[in-house]
Parts: sequence; structure tokens; C-alpha cells
Amino acid sequence: MKPKNIVALLASCMARVTTTGCAMEGDSLPRRAATFVDTVLRGIGQVMLQNNSLTGLLFLVGIFYNASLFGWAVLLGTITSTATAMLLGAERAQVRAGLFGFNGALVAIGLMYFLDLNLLTWTYVVLAAASTTVILAALLRLLGTWNVPALTAPFVFTTLFFVMACARFGRLQTTGVLPTAGLPKAASTVEGIVTISTVLEGLFNGIAQIFFQGNMVTGVIFALALLISSRVAGLAALLGSFTGILVAWIMGAAEPAIRSGAFGFNSALTAIALVSVFFVLDVASAAYALLATVVTVVVFAAMSGALEPLGMPALTSPFVLVVWLFVLAGPLFPRLRRAAG
Amino acid sequence: MKPKNIVALLASCMARVTTTGCAMEGDSLPRRAATFVDTVLRGIGQVMLQNNSLTGLLFLVGIFYNASLFGWAVLLGTITSTATAMLLGAERAQVRAGLFGFNGALVAIGLMYFLDLNLLTWTYVVLAAASTTVILAALLRLLGTWNVPALTAPFVFTTLFFVMACARFGRLQTTGVLPTAGLPKAASTVEGIVTISTVLEGLFNGIAQIFFQGNMVTGVIFALALLISSRVAGLAALLGSFTGILVAWIMGAAEPAIRSGAFGFNSALTAIALVSVFFVLDVASAAYALLATVVTVVVFAAMSGALEPLGMPALTSPFVLVVWLFVLAGPLFPRLRRAAG
Amino acid sequence: MKPKNIVALLASCMARVTTTGCAMEGDSLPRRAATFVDTVLRGIGQVMLQNNSLTGLLFLVGIFYNASLFGWAVLLGTITSTATAMLLGAERAQVRAGLFGFNGALVAIGLMYFLDLNLLTWTYVVLAAASTTVILAALLRLLGTWNVPALTAPFVFTTLFFVMACARFGRLQTTGVLPTAGLPKAASTVEGIVTISTVLEGLFNGIAQIFFQGNMVTGVIFALALLISSRVAGLAALLGSFTGILVAWIMGAAEPAIRSGAFGFNSALTAIALVSVFFVLDVASAAYALLATVVTVVVFAAMSGALEPLGMPALTSPFVLVVWLFVLAGPLFPRLRRAAG
Repeated sequence: MKPKNIVALLASCMARVTTTGCAMEGDSLPRRAATFVDTVLRGIGQVMLQNNSLTGLLFLVGIFYNASLFGWAVLLGTITSTATAMLLGAERAQVRAGLFGFNGALVAIGLMYFLDLNLLTWTYVVLAAASTTVILAALLRLLGTWNVPALTAPFVFTTLFFVMACARFGRLQTTGVLPTAGLPKAASTVEGIVTISTVLEGLFNGIAQIFFQGNMVTGVIFALALLISSRVAGLAALLGSFTGILVAWIMGAAEPAIRSGAFGFNSALTAIALVSVFFVLDVASAAYALLATVVTVVVFAAMSGALEPLGMPALTSPFVLVVWLFVLAGPLFPRLRRAAG
Repeated sequence: MKPKNIVALLASCMARVTTTGCAMEGDSLPRRAATFVDTVLRGIGQVMLQNNSLTGLLFLVGIFYNASLFGWAVLLGTITSTATAMLLGAERAQVRAGLFGFNGALVAIGLMYFLDLNLLTWTYVVLAAASTTVILAALLRLLGTWNVPALTAPFVFTTLFFVMACARFGRLQTTGVLPTAGLPKAASTVEGIVTISTVLEGLFNGIAQIFFQGNMVTGVIFALALLISSRVAGLAALLGSFTGILVAWIMGAAEPAIRSGAFGFNSALTAIALVSVFFVLDVASAAYALLATVVTVVVFAAMSGALEPLGMPALTSPFVLVVWLFVLAGPLFPRLRRAAG
Repeated sequence: MKPKNIVALLASCMARVTTTGCAMEGDSLPRRAATFVDTVLRGIGQVMLQNNSLTGLLFLVGIFYNASLFGWAVLLGTITSTATAMLLGAERAQVRAGLFGFNGALVAIGLMYFLDLNLLTWTYVVLAAASTTVILAALLRLLGTWNVPALTAPFVFTTLFFVMACARFGRLQTTGVLPTAGLPKAASTVEGIVTISTVLEGLFNGIAQIFFQGNMVTGVIFALALLISSRVAGLAALLGSFTGILVAWIMGAAEPAIRSGAFGFNSALTAIALVSVFFVLDVASAAYALLATVVTVVVFAAMSGALEPLGMPALTSPFVLVVWLFVLAGPLFPRLRRAAG
């Protein structure tokens, strides 16, 4: 199926959605279906913290543009984790906002990216996506004690566990994309020269990599999707990705890694979260978010090294860790005002 | 001392126990001793979440049947950790239910299994068993915030730390049983063919391995001991062990590992915990427990790989992690009813 | 600048501090400066849990005595993390007690110890020290739920992340002091013979190593600084360091490591914390602290091994982990009385 067909299909579903409210008991079947589609799209939007189905749809378009396999994976993952939440009777408003969708979306795309394709892999993806729902609920309870969000932690844990497990499972093979297990080297040299093209490619790749997509056009589509949902979020993502590039360049990171967006996608997410979601934007919170964004680059470099002996990628663990710490610390710093949401 | 002598000794102690209540201030010395023996046996029973001294006694019989060294280790460990709790003034009812015993039991058997025997090792076991009491109390406070049980986490942490430390201690040597430290391989092949005998041996080994025993007869004794305490728990353990075998086989795990019960013991514990202890058994909780049991197999494979660079075994960490998540998530899923206990 | 000049400078600042209260809005500039100096010195004192600026000053003297680079690093780190807390509007009394200083002090000295020196390194130190303030605030909120202290956890996390990250950053190089990444060996032999000189050197090195200083005289100055603040704390540190040596020697640890104070500095901190800060000193708490101090040695050996595949040092993680567990467990053991502070 080609991208434009998918878009047409989804757009026709979207047209039916005339309300953002939940599907009610008395709703007709088509209306229920439309509501479910809207919920799934919000789930995809929530990958970048946007409760907006149009943004989610555009994310999907961006992914299908690059590789339709990943588009299907995202749909399967989001549907599975959302449906699991509904089957278990999770709170309607949370499900409706796509909260139980985004980790399923990411786990599915992650497993498809790291594992060889066969029928068992698809089953494995369904199992993993269903697991994210339980892990999210567990984290909602755990972190709710401090009013801290779960973010993409269920995705990180589930992907790491499900990929790592394959070393014991002869019928599930990993692809060459996965880093080779090795001992971290103490020394590194400055590799390659950062040019304008590095920065430009890195900037949009940094946003595309949030969904494992190494494609500038996809990155541009994602940025537009964000801007539609929230101008502040869109600008924060771009500035976050740019900060990632800048800091990595100053510290002497390898040029190909900078160009690929590796140093940008966690920083972009950190910037979106702190600037547009968890704090009211002012001078203090902007400075606070800048510190967090810079620290995210360091934590990304550290996590990449820490996971090297396991041959595992850092995924969005730096974003999760840094935003957890900075949100947790917030109330002790009265200069920062927590956003109402 | 031969197993049957031990049993006779313990049975005569048991006979004196006419009440399950705590030893009171005014109790006579023999009565206090009998109460203590009963407490220790409950501690052994709690390894599989059974507050039942007969079950604990039968576990001990099963262990002595396989190897008397491990039987003595279990007794030493349980006595040490229970006595430490009493000395520190821990709550009487919790001590009496064997809550401060089972981690000591497991740590002692674990250290005996992984370390070369000498006088220092026995001292080390006592130190480790006493530590589990503090770690359990710490976890009771920590996890009590969310009404989540500590399970065998103190055993897992203490064993990993005390075994890992031996690499720095010239007078404490590890045995060849311990996995060799290495980098996880990305690829694996399907090794060996799973037959009926694999399943049958794996089924009971999976229950025996909870106490580090690779012995089918011991597994059968353990299963009977469980059935005596709770038919649901006994069936859950068997089904859990079987699910572990089945999932590992479908995924293409190595036949010798499946036969040894390696893929079953964590799943058996997960099944006991979710089906017979923490949730009221119905269709929803059965499906939830099945998901947890399957996920436990994946987490076991992942943890084994994750600990490979340290040359450490996964122990019951998959059971602990999965049950923590699934119990923590419970209240957000109204379809599941939490058991009163 | 020579040590005695530094001392003279600091002493003249100290002379101006006539109150331990906070700088108030109406305070004159010199008075504010003096208050800030006092706050910074308390921050240095808090590395060993002493809210005492004279103790902090003597710690600084001891460090300058050994290596002035580390002295400047401590000052830069403490000032940065304290100033960050003030800028973010952290609670005045906590800042004033040096609570936001000690992790900055340790991170700065740690990074200076492990990284090659250049202008970027100094910037990196400032970034790391500022980060400890956010991490401390995050841990204060997190652990406050159970009334558990953050201790030096921000230092441990920040140092590990910032050093590990250098493997990806070509302009930040690690020194040869850092352990080489490798797989832990299962076997070890007893290496070297422990003599009186091992014990004597190890005893004071164990206290000096808390600030990364391998210098007996510095250790003696630190011990005196502690005794000035609290006789119990000073004796606890010495006994803790001694217990570390004794346990390591019994277990068969390598003599050079024992002599260097490697097995003592975590135990010294554990002893200070449990004996003089968190529990009222009596027979029960002394026994409890002894258990904790012995366990700290095992945890140090284990953490050193666990971090070997990453080529990272254990730092004070054993102290943090053990004191967290023993303080957390405290309320469940009524024999122990929690200190009011």
C-alpha cells in the first residue's frame, strides 16, 4: 500500500470524527470506529507529547513517506497497546488522550527496526506493545506519587528487554543495525568536520529519529506536525535538536553521528517537555530547559557508552531520565512555575 | 546426618507446635523453641509465598533429598535472617509468618551454590542472610507506599552483591557453576530438539530450580508441598512452569536450558503470585497472569543477557520485576480485583 | 598560590563571619560575601555530613596541602552548585547549611581527577556542578517521601555520567587514573601481605580518599577537622575506615588496595552517617552500624566489579546504597531510635 493511499484512508476516517469526546455506550459502530481511529492518532501524536490527532496523522504520513513497514508497525503497536488498555478497563479519558498508545507505537517501530522480520516477530511486537500498557500503568501509579510523568520509559524498558532477550531465542534474530556489544573505549578522537550541511541535516534528522527515521523530509513533516499542534512545541523541538548538535560539536563528537541526528532527538524531546508541557515559559524556565537540554546531550553520550557492553542503543532513555529529574526538582525551585496541565 | 533423620528431628519439633500464634512472654522454653521452628519452616514455605510450616517442611525434605549441604544452608540462612529480625525488634506477626525467613533461606543456598566451601564462606553466608533482613525491611517501607510486596528482591540483590564481591576477595572463590563473564552474542541458533522428556523434566525442574535444585523428584515434592498449602498455588506453579517451557520452545531457546528448568522457575513464581496471592482468580486476572507469565520468559532471557558481562545469573529477578509491575499496575485496571490478603 | 596563602585568605574571610544566620536583604555587601564564604565552607564540610564551616575550611586545607588543583576544583564546584541553587530560588536554610554545596565539590574534584585538563574541562565541571543541584533537589523530593537523605548520590550519578560521556567526545579525554574497561575475573588470589604500615596508611588514606586524596597527612587533617565538629563523627570515621581494612584483610583483598584506603572510605562515611547523624548512639544502633559498615565493604567490592565492564570507579555508591537501605529500614526496627536532626 502506498503512502498516499494510507493517507486517503486515514483522512476519510478522520472526517467522521466530529467530536474529541469519548465513544459512548449508545454510539453507533461507525462512530465508535472513528473515535478509535482518533484515539490511535492521538496516541501517535503523544510520542512527542501532543494530544492532537492531526499531528499524529502527519507523524504517520512522515513515517510512511520514509518506509511503509514502519508505518504499519506504528499502527499495529498503537492499536495493540490502546486495545489492551481498553480490555483491562483503564480510565476512558486517559485512553482517549492517546496516553496508552505512544509507547506501543515506539516499541513496535523499535522492534521492527532491530529484529529480522518473520511471523514470530509480528507476534513478538504484539506481546511487547501489550506489555507497554501494563508498564505504563505501573509507572503512572509509581510516579504519580510525585506528579511526575511516565514519558517514554515503558518503550525504553520494553524495547531493551525484548531485543536483549533475542540472544537466547534462536527464532528471533537481530539486524545489523544494532550496535555490536563491546567494551567502551576510554579515548576518542574528533572525527570528521562539522559543516552547514551537517547542521541542516542533523537538525531535521534529530526530529525524525524520535521515530527511528533517518530522513530529513520526514523530519520536516514532523516539525510541521508539531507546529500545527503548538508553535512553542515546534520551536522547542527545533531549538532542542540544534542545541544537541551544537553541544556535541563543541565537545568533539563524531560528525556522522551529529549528522544522523543521534545527538539531537533526545534533546528535542527534553526541550518540548520542559518548555511547552511541564513549566510555564518564562526566563527562568527557559534557562532551566536550556540546562536540561545540554545535560541531555551528555547523558545520551554516557548511556550509549553504558549500554555498549550489552550491544544495546540508548533509545530515549536520556530524555526520560533528564526530564524526570528536572520535573521532580521543579517544586523546590520557586522561580519555576509548573504548568497547569 | 541423613535426610530421614532430619525429617524425624523436625517432625518431633513440629509435633509440639499446637498453635500458630506467636510465642508469648510467659511461654515455656520448649514451647518457644517449637514456635521458633514453626516460624523457620514458614520462612522456608514463603519462598513460594506459602505461610504454611508443613509446606516449608516438605520443601526442606525435597532439598535434603537432593543434597544435604543445601538443606543445612537453608536452615542456617532462615534461622539467621529470622533471628536478626527478632533481635532488631521487628513486628512479631510479620516475623511469625516467616516473612523475614525466605530471603535468608535463598541467599544461603545461593551462596553455597556459587561459592567454594570453607569456614569463611559460612561466615559470609551468615552476614549475607542477616543483610537480607535489613534489605527486606527497607523494601517493606519503600514499596509499602504503593502496597507492593518485596518478594525475593532482597535475595536477588544480596546474592548478586555478595557473589560479585568475591572477585576482589582472594579467600572467597566462586565455583564453576557461575556463568563466565562475556559479551552477549547478537545471534543464536535453535539448539537441540524439544521432546516429551524435555517438557516433563523441565516442568518439575522448573519448580525445583526455585531453590537451585536441578532434580525432578525434588520438583515433584515441591509441587506436592504447594498443593497441600493451596491447590490453586500448586496448579499455578505447574502451569507457570509449563508456560515457561512452551514460550521458550516457540521462541527457539536451547533445549538443554529448557530441560534444566531455567525458563520455568521464574514463570512458576509469577503464576503463583498473580493467580493465587495478589488477585482474585477470574477470567480477567487469569488472562493478566498469563500475559505476565509469558513476559517473565522474555525478561528472564533479557536479564540473563544483561548480566552476562558481569558473569552473574538472573536468579529470580525476572519474577520480582514482572510481579512488581503487574501488581503496581493493578489498581488502574478495574477489571482486576485485588485479593484481600 | 601556596596552601598557606589560601588559608590566610580564607581565614580573613572567616573572621568576618560573626553569625551563622543567612544573609538578609538589608545586609551589606561585605557581610553578604562573608555569609557566602561561610556557606561554601559548610558545603565542603557536608561532604562528611558536617554543617560546620571550620571543618569545611580544614578539609580545604587538607586538599590544598596535597594538590592545589583539587583545592581550586572543590571551590569552583561548591560555588557553582551553591550559586545555582540560589539562582533557582532554593530554600534559604538548606542552601545556608551547605546542602547544595557538597555534591558540587565532589563532582568537581572527581572530574578533575579523571579528565585531562583544558578549558573545555573547566566548563564541563561547571555544567556538572550545576547539574548536581537539580539532581539533589530531585532526590530531596523523591526520598523525602520516606525521610531518607540524598547523601552523595548526585555526585555519584553526575560523575559517572559525565566521565562515561567522554568516550563519545573527542575534546574531552580521560586520564590513566580511570580503571580500564574489562570483564570481571571470577578468580582472585590473596595479593601482598598486610602489615602494621598497611593498616596505618590505610586508616588515614581511607578518610583522605573521601575527597580522592591519596595522602596520609591529608587524612590526618580530615580526621582532626571531623573531631572538631563532632567527636563521635571523628571516631566513627576512624573506626569505619579501620573496619573496612579489617574486613578486606580477612576476606583476602589485595594489600595495595587496602593500603590505598580503597576499602575504607565508604565504610568511614557509612559509620559517620549511622552512628553520628541518623540514629541515637546506643548498643543497638552501634551493632546496626557495625553490620552496615561491614556490608559496605562487600558492596564496595561488588560495585567495583559491576562497573568494570564500563571502566568506571565505584565512587561513594556503596556508602549511598547501604545508608539508604539501613536508614529506610530503621523505623521497622523499634530497638533503633532515629536522631531528631
